[in-house]
This record gives sequence, structure tokens and C-alpha cells, in this order.
Amino acid sequence: MNATHPAHIQRRAIPAGFIEALRERFGDRLSTAAAVREHHGRDESPYAAMPPDAVVYATSTEEVAWVAAHCHRHHVPLIPYGVGSSLEGHLLAVQGGVSLDLSGMNHIVAVHAEDFTATVQAGVTRKQLNDHIRDTGLFFPIDPGADASLGGMAATRASGTNAVRYGTMRENVVSLKVVTADGRIIDTAGRARKSSAGYDLTRVFVGSEGTLGIITEVTVRLYPQPEAISAAICNFPDLRSAVQSVIEVIQMGVPVARVEFMDTAAVRATNAYSKLTLKESPLLLFEFHGSPSGVREQAETVQEIARANGGEDFAWAEHPEDRNRLWTARHNAYFAGLQLRPGCRSSTTDVCVPISRLAECVTETAAELDQASFPYTIVGHVGDGNFHVLMLLDPDNPAEFAESEALNRRLVERAIRMQGTCTGEHGVGLHKMPFMEMEFGRDALDLMAALKRAFDPHNILNPGKIIPSGPATEHAA
Amino acid sequence: MNATHPAHIQRRAIPAGFIEALRERFGDRLSTAAAVREHHGRDESPYAAMPPDAVVYATSTEEVAWVAAHCHRHHVPLIPYGVGSSLEGHLLAVQGGVSLDLSGMNHIVAVHAEDFTATVQAGVTRKQLNDHIRDTGLFFPIDPGADASLGGMAATRASGTNAVRYGTMRENVVSLKVVTADGRIIDTAGRARKSSAGYDLTRVFVGSEGTLGIITEVTVRLYPQPEAISAAICNFPDLRSAVQSVIEVIQMGVPVARVEFMDTAAVRATNAYSKLTLKESPLLLFEFHGSPSGVREQAETVQEIARANGGEDFAWAEHPEDRNRLWTARHNAYFAGLQLRPGCRSSTTDVCVPISRLAECVTETAAELDQASFPYTIVGHVGDGNFHVLMLLDPDNPAEFAESEALNRRLVERAIRMQGTCTGEHGVGLHKMPFMEMEFGRDALDLMAALKRAFDPHNILNPGKIIPSGPATEHAA
Repeated sequence: MNATHPAHIQRRAIPAGFIEALRERFGDRLSTAAAVREHHGRDESPYAAMPPDAVVYATSTEEVAWVAAHCHRHHVPLIPYGVGSSLEGHLLAVQGGVSLDLSGMNHIVAVHAEDFTATVQAGVTRKQLNDHIRDTGLFFPIDPGADASLGGMAATRASGTNAVRYGTMRENVVSLKVVTADGRIIDTAGRARKSSAGYDLTRVFVGSEGTLGIITEVTVRLYPQPEAISAAICNFPDLRSAVQSVIEVIQMGVPVARVEFMDTAAVRATNAYSKLTLKESPLLLFEFHGSPSGVREQAETVQEIARANGGEDFAWAEHPEDRNRLWTARHNAYFAGLQLRPGCRSSTTDVCVPISRLAECVTETAAELDQASFPYTIVGHVGDGNFHVLMLLDPDNPAEFAESEALNRRLVERAIRMQGTCTGEHGVGLHKMPFMEMEFGRDALDLMAALKRAFDPHNILNPGKIIPSGPATEHAA
Repeated sequence: MNATHPAHIQRRAIPAGFIEALRERFGDRLSTAAAVREHHGRDESPYAAMPPDAVVYATSTEEVAWVAAHCHRHHVPLIPYGVGSSLEGHLLAVQGGVSLDLSGMNHIVAVHAEDFTATVQAGVTRKQLNDHIRDTGLFFPIDPGADASLGGMAATRASGTNAVRYGTMRENVVSLKVVTADGRIIDTAGRARKSSAGYDLTRVFVGSEGTLGIITEVTVRLYPQPEAISAAICNFPDLRSAVQSVIEVIQMGVPVARVEFMDTAAVRATNAYSKLTLKESPLLLFEFHGSPSGVREQAETVQEIARANGGEDFAWAEHPEDRNRLWTARHNAYFAGLQLRPGCRSSTTDVCVPISRLAECVTETAAELDQASFPYTIVGHVGDGNFHVLMLLDPDNPAEFAESEALNRRLVERAIRMQGTCTGEHGVGLHKMPFMEMEFGRDALDLMAALKRAFDPHNILNPGKIIPSGPATEHAA
């Protein structure tokens, strides 16, 4: 899929002495080894690697600032790298330059349990944070499939299965420490729960995918671990009845913590991969958080609503081990799906629509995918109107890739037509760039480009991503 | 307080023919009458009016775009005006120009009950919206004291008593229709609950106080009306025990909908103004939303925690009329406070700190205020760490105003030292501008200024606000 190289995919020349200066500063924490560069030039997307010219392993915000200033001075691209779990080509060094590996910045800076906040370095992963705070009685709910770094999660505005109750990174980042394109260090906010003081720099950087600044510390909101948790599975005759149940559940004010949809193929794959015996029909997977009686009440209400919509076989998982098995299975749905076609290469996509349009959007999409020459699964964070399509492609058959891209395009067009978005939680990276103008219109995209130029006048920060702007030199000073 | 006129408060010359062109386009919806200009050159702050040169009453987004393009072409300031209820000098025409009155843009554009969203024109007020959607079983929770316009609430990132459970305008604006400085019309997002597509233009505009674009439509999230609601009052020996109770309540995961603090003076004022007989001690006012049994359980948990912290006289208000009387009294605390000193002029301020520092911050502040030569009250959205000080000044005694400004400065310095913010919900306007650098630092403020220049290169949108930038002509093209 590197057959065409548009203007924003053009390697820049690295000035003489640039790499040597990095080596002098970082010693063996600077690598130009092919394997290391290759590893840092890819993510979990199906794109072939586009390696950077060098990889620097940073251990402090000050080091990040030094690298940024160096790259700024010499107009060399700079791409922050966490654990490499992004899905849409975010990390590819399409214009070459330096990949800045932040995985060594993995210290918990502070936990303020009384304030329900934790401050961590960008390389700390979500599981590491939750392990660290377990004894405080608090937890951090945002859970993308991968054990992603908090810096990366902030940068892609990630979410996961808990967003219907707890929100996404948009709602849960309190403050960021950011290195600007020219190597200055700022804090976007204090630790107050709310503020009306000036422009919301925090949310300017959340979701900016490394193109406006480099996040080196993240302060996030924490939540009390629920006193009681229970999970339930319910089978439905079709997607429409499942979605209608979810709409009614939310309308009743039931504060459901998770509600996930899996199509029949995803259930089948999960059964095979995770040794489960779920009934192979469209299903909803619920989780309830609260007091013991509150959880019971929520579950009863949901069960009634589901039954009225044709749901059946409402099954409980009250024991932690049963619940964990279920959710581990759900988090592994991606890997399970891959096993449906051994040796395949996968292409994933995600869209998000207003929930009233979700059944229609998924049904139309599934009808198209049923005609495809490859297998697929659909899973969704259905309370948010967000769903994922996993397409399982023959790596040796370029026609299948082209077919999957055409299906992806029609899916995105459908979502945008329904007042939705081209990506609910994966981010834009390279893969969704062609749809930005369709979603936002030329004038809004111009504003985004103006913001990019204002924050990164030499276009060094993860250039060639998000905004389909011109070649590398267009905005150089 | 207009004695000193810094660089950002300099009227600009209006080019010949500029007003005439407006008159030709808008007829009698253009006014240059002194009384109309005076009315549009003030807000609820203690600042004396600084009237615009003209007032235009717009009725559509296209009209707003026409005015913006006209002002942009001629480098004339343009200040959007809703209902005039801002508190920090947001609306003063410090550089002259056009006040754009949006109160006539008061149509409900669409209610999507299944999606829990409503789209309204910027002039629709929060009460108007709630009246309109009453029969849907949904409500819009954000409730600043005034019946503000939704456009104004978005522009100031407003919140109110429900924020501890439902969030602020930051979390509850789904999308905005915005007119840019040069008169283009954009939509910042679709209606999906979440999106990872590109820069978060929605939150760039939320809280930008009319300085980056003119909001003409707002799409907000709605919530199901709770099945059951109850309210309770609890008296405490001091603020510290009240705040400690709130921390423990949140730590227990009780999803309290509202928790408000009133100091003894505020209670006394409220008793007098609203004909109530509340015990005159520091108190917390709670509200619980949920199912009948859920509400009962929440209340029991809170009562136990309060009692363990020295709270007493836990009193219930389960009947809607009792509850409404209480909350009306709370919303009228500002007017009640004014009656403590008949004929006074008030100066209000608000800060927000991490909740672990709230007791310390309020206690230190109250100790200073006890030495002041004027009366004051303190009320707070204590679950958020946000509180308000109302200072009651003799309008004929400039020394009192100077004293109140010095107290305000020390309060803000204290809040920022505690990792808080100079304003939790009022916004910056003119009054908090001097503290922006203290809170964010020079480098972050430079980024905000770069954002402003990128979005408004001629510095026409509510110029001289938020960012203490130079004189009017500094950024002119």
C-alpha cells in the first residue's frame, strides 16, 4: 500500500552533523540500527514500515525539549513513540526524521488519592497505572484494547469499553506537560477539576497525535473502585433489538458502566480463541458498577428492557474470575478475529454515529461486508454509537486490500452522512486523512491547519498526519 | 476602576462609511443610541460601562457571518452579546466596535431525544431549553446562577451546581456552529458522542469568550430526568468537617448530583432574603438523583459520613416544592448577599482548587476577609473544589474597591499556589487577565496568543480580553 506517495509522504534531507549532535548528547540511547528504525516506523496498522532516520530513547522532559529544539532548528521531523499500539499509521515516519521513544519515561510522578488524580510520565501504561494505584481504592477506567501508554492514549484521544459511563481521554485528562515544537516546556493546566481560565490547551493537545506538541506527563482523573460489580450477557435475534435495548437503558438513566456488542462471527471467534461457550448470536455484554443493591437494581431494569426487545438467555457473571474471563475475551476479540483466517493480515476501522443511527449504520455495513471476498467481525462500544470492523485479508492478494479500502470508504461516508465521525477512538493517523475534509469541510480544516502552523511553524511534529497539508517545506520558515 | 487604561484598552477609530454600511444591511436592527450602546457595554461585573460604537441585532448565522466579514475587512472590533450575565467584564467594548446581540437567535433547532442531544441557536437560554424539552423526559443540567444563553455559557465554559455529577460546558457541548473572524461558517463536529478525528475545535471555542469565533449554534448533551430526587441539608461545626465529608462521599463512589457549601453569612442572608429558617452555621446542601431505592441508599451513606465528621441536623426535602424552594434560595444567594448591605456594589470572584486543598484555601481566605472593612459571603460548589466570594462594597468609597481587589489578588495567588485556577466557572474577561501569566507561565500564554493570532489575525474578536496582549494594532495584517 505504499504504491502511491502523495505530497505529504516525502522524506526530508537530514542536515549534515544533525545525527552526530544527537549521538554526542545521547550516546547509546541514539540508534540508527535498521531493526530499531524499522520497529519504530510501524504500528499495528497494516501499513508497511516507513522507518525514521534515527531513534532517540528519552528519559526526561528536559531531554525531549533538547531534541525538539534541535529538530526545530534544523527542520527535521520528530515523532513521539510510546508502545507502538496505534492502529491507523500514526507512527510511520512518512517524512523521515527522529522517532522519540518515550517508553523509558515510565515513572508514576504523583498520586493524589483525595483529589482523584494521578500524574504519570508519558510512557506509563494503563495497566501499570492501575497496578500502582490498586491499594488506594481507586482505578483509571480508560481501556483501549492494547496496554497503551498514557501519553499515546492522550495523543489519540483514546477510549474503550468504559467510556459510556466514565468518558474518554477527552474528559479524563486533567492536565498535560508538553514540549512545544521549539523545545519549550509548558503545563496546560493545574489540577483543579474545572477551570474557565483561557483557552483549553489541554484539549488542544488531547487527540493531536503528536502533531502540535510532545506530551511528556499526563495527569488523569481516577475513580473509586465500585463497591460491587456484576456482568451479564444477553443474546438478541438481531442487532436492531440489541441497540434499541441500549437506547432504552440509557433513557431510563441506568448508569451502565459497559455495554458491548459482538456480532455472531465475533462471538464464534471468541469462543474458539478464549475457550468459551457463548451462544453464537448477536449479543450484548453488560457491566454494572455501584452498591450491591444498586447493581442488582440496574441489572433487573436492564434485563426487563432486554426481554421486552427480544433478548434472551440473560446470563450472569458475578464472580470476579467469570467476569474477568469475559472481559479478557472481549479485549482479545481482535486476536480472536485474526484466528478466523490463519495467516491473514488484518485491516481495522472504527466509526461512531449518533446512537439513533447505529442499528442502521451497522446493518447496512454488515450487508455490504457479507458480499466481500474475505471474512470480517464487528464489535462495538454500543452505548457510545461506536463500532469496529475487522477485515481479514490475504496478505498476498492486493485485490483484497483494495476491496477493504473501498468498504472502509463507504463505511466512513455512511457514518458522516449520519452526523457521525470517521473515527470514534482510533484517531486519524494516515488512514483517515482522506476523510477529514468530508467530515469537517474545507473551512474547518483550514482552521486546523492554521492551528498547526501556529504551534509548529516548521512542520516538524509528526508531519504528514491528520491534516492533508502540502509537502514538508510548505510551512517552513 | 477605569482610572488606568492599559494598552489593550484603547478605542479604535471606526472607518468612514463603516456604520452606514451596517445600517444599510440591518436597518433598524442597527442602533447607535446611547442607551442601547451603554446597555451592551457592560455586564454583571462592577466595571463601569465601556460602550461599543454600534449594536447589531442578528437573527441568523448568515447575518453574523456578514457582520464578521465586514468587521474583518475594516479591522473593527466585534463582541458577541447574549443576555449580558457575565461577571468579569467580558462584554465591555474596551476597544470600541460592534456589539452583536444574539438574543434574537433564540430558536430550538432540533431535539434528538434518542441521541440525548439538543441543538439550539446561541440566544436560547438554559431555562428556555429545559422548558422546551420537559415532555421528552430529558433535561439539560448546567445551571449557572443566571438564566444565561447557551452561546454565552459555551463561550465562558460555564458550570453551576450540577457539575460534580454532570460536568461543565466543557464536557457537555457536543458541537458548535461558529462564524470565524473572516466570516466563514463552520461546524466543529458531528453529533457522535465521541470522536478521535483531528483537533478538538469544539473545545478550542468552548471557553474562548468570543475571542476566537462567534458561536451561533450549540449542540448539547441531555440527560434523563432522574426517576427520584431528594435533597438534604446538613449543618457542620466548620468548613473543614464539611469538606472532609464531601471527599469521603466521593471516595465512596456516591454519585451525588449536587453538593453546595454556604458559610454562616450566606445562610443568614438567604434566610432573610428567601424567608427560610435554616440554622445559621456552615452547611452543605445535597441533592441525590437515581431510582427511589438508589436515592435512599445514597442519602443514608452521606448521612453516616456527615455524622462521623460532626455534621448534624440532617434535614430532608423530598417534596418537589421544598426542594425547589431550597435550590431557588441557593440560586438567589447572590441577590440575598447583596441585601446584607443595602445600596452596596458587589464584587464577586471565583477560584477552584484540588479538593484536598479546599478547606485550607477557604479557611485562609475567610480569615483574611474577616479583617476586611466590608461584609462578604462564601458559597461553593464544594464537590468541584470551586468557591465564590461575594464582597459588598460601598460604591462611594474607592478604598473599599481597592481593598477588595487586593483580597482578590491574594485569593487567586493562593489558589494557583495550590495547583488551582484563577477562575473555576466565571471566565477571565477583564478581571482575571492579570493572573493568566501567573497561572500558565509565559510560554503557555505565548501558545494561547499564537492560537488567537491564527484564528483572528486582525484581532477583531472581543479584543483586549483573556490574553494580556499588546495594543489593538499589534496583530493587524
